[in-house]
Amino acid sequence: MVKQERAVRTRQALVRAAAELFAAHGYARASLPAISARAGVSTGALHFHFPDKDALAGEVERVAARTVRELAGRCGRSEGSALGALVTATRQLAVTLAADPVTSAGFRLGGDPARRHRAGPLDWWQAWVRETVGRAEAAGELADGVCSEGAVVAVVAATAGFETLGSRDRDWLSRERMDRFWTLLLPCLASRPPTKEPRP
Amino acid sequence: MVKQERAVRTRQALVRAAAELFAAHGYARASLPAISARAGVSTGALHFHFPDKDALAGEVERVAARTVRELAGRCGRSEGSALGALVTATRQLAVTLAADPVTSAGFRLGGDPARRHRAGPLDWWQAWVRETVGRAEAAGELADGVCSEGAVVAVVAATAGFETLGSRDRDWLSRERMDRFWTLLLPCLASRPPTKEPRP
Repeated sequence: MVKQERAVRTRQALVRAAAELFAAHGYARASLPAISARAGVSTGALHFHFPDKDALAGEVERVAARTVRELAGRCGRSEGSALGALVTATRQLAVTLAADPVTSAGFRLGGDPARRHRAGPLDWWQAWVRETVGRAEAAGELADGVCSEGAVVAVVAATAGFETLGSRDRDWLSRERMDRFWTLLLPCLASRPPTKEPRP
Repeated sequence: MVKQERAVRTRQALVRAAAELFAAHGYARASLPAISARAGVSTGALHFHFPDKDALAGEVERVAARTVRELAGRCGRSEGSALGALVTATRQLAVTLAADPVTSAGFRLGGDPARRHRAGPLDWWQAWVRETVGRAEAAGELADGVCSEGAVVAVVAATAGFETLGSRDRDWLSRERMDRFWTLLLPCLASRPPTKEPRP
């Protein structure tokens, strides 16, 4: 294997191992020796890529934010409406949080006192929801009397809550919960049924 | 001061100090010597009341759960409708999370890997929301076509999210955010305007 490919794979293995151990033990208790052992690399290799645990946590958050950006970007391009993109993106975010330890650890790190003041995937997500609700408003997709700020608050708070609750009980990230949430909220927000059904 | 009163005050001081240090440093990093110093008691006095950090965290969660139970009970008794009780209780929960370190630490502890499998205030809150939405449904307060399970999911997820987001940014627990949330959601849920306005 070419040296650069191996370096990339080592970094990916370290990021994933760090995410798994942050989830299992919390940021404070996760140790660098345990992370490098989990990744199957030496502690020297870990330190070559990441000077300290803070740098590793930063990379977990960056990779998580990139995953969410790419997910949201795909939904934005594939859905016929901004509200459709919002519905699909929240569903896919829930699936990703349940399935991908790096994305869920990236979100969780934002709640750790040691990392609370760093920008993370949740900050990016908030901004994207706000922008997307703004697009929905501009396109006349919101019902009369619906305050766009209320829609932003409800969607951001609920998705943050699904993540928090989902870290204790996976059912909170299930298809069924997302169905129930949007079955309640979408008629509340939308001025008319979307012309193109949001993809499940 | 009578000995029993002093013991009660010592416990309260320790619970509050523990809550503040769990919030500032996280459960893993908060040390018992720092907690006893913050409470102005000796480490011996701390160990008299709490054999270990786990017991102290358990007491923080119990006190938080009791605060939320009492808050919800008052709202249930003072509001004319179950939906009114739900609105008022979520508002008062937000105020309490912003103002009372023991309540917010009690909620936050449920997210710590060391304490994730213990029942805490958030579990109690979920059960209360479910029961209250059930009462609203039985009393005909929900609009036709509104699924009570969807209402439970939306309210529990959003309140968990307000707590998570509020631990990083106090604005998420503000009166304004609660107003925007309920201005959007209440007309969506309610079959008719409540006969008695929910108290702010």
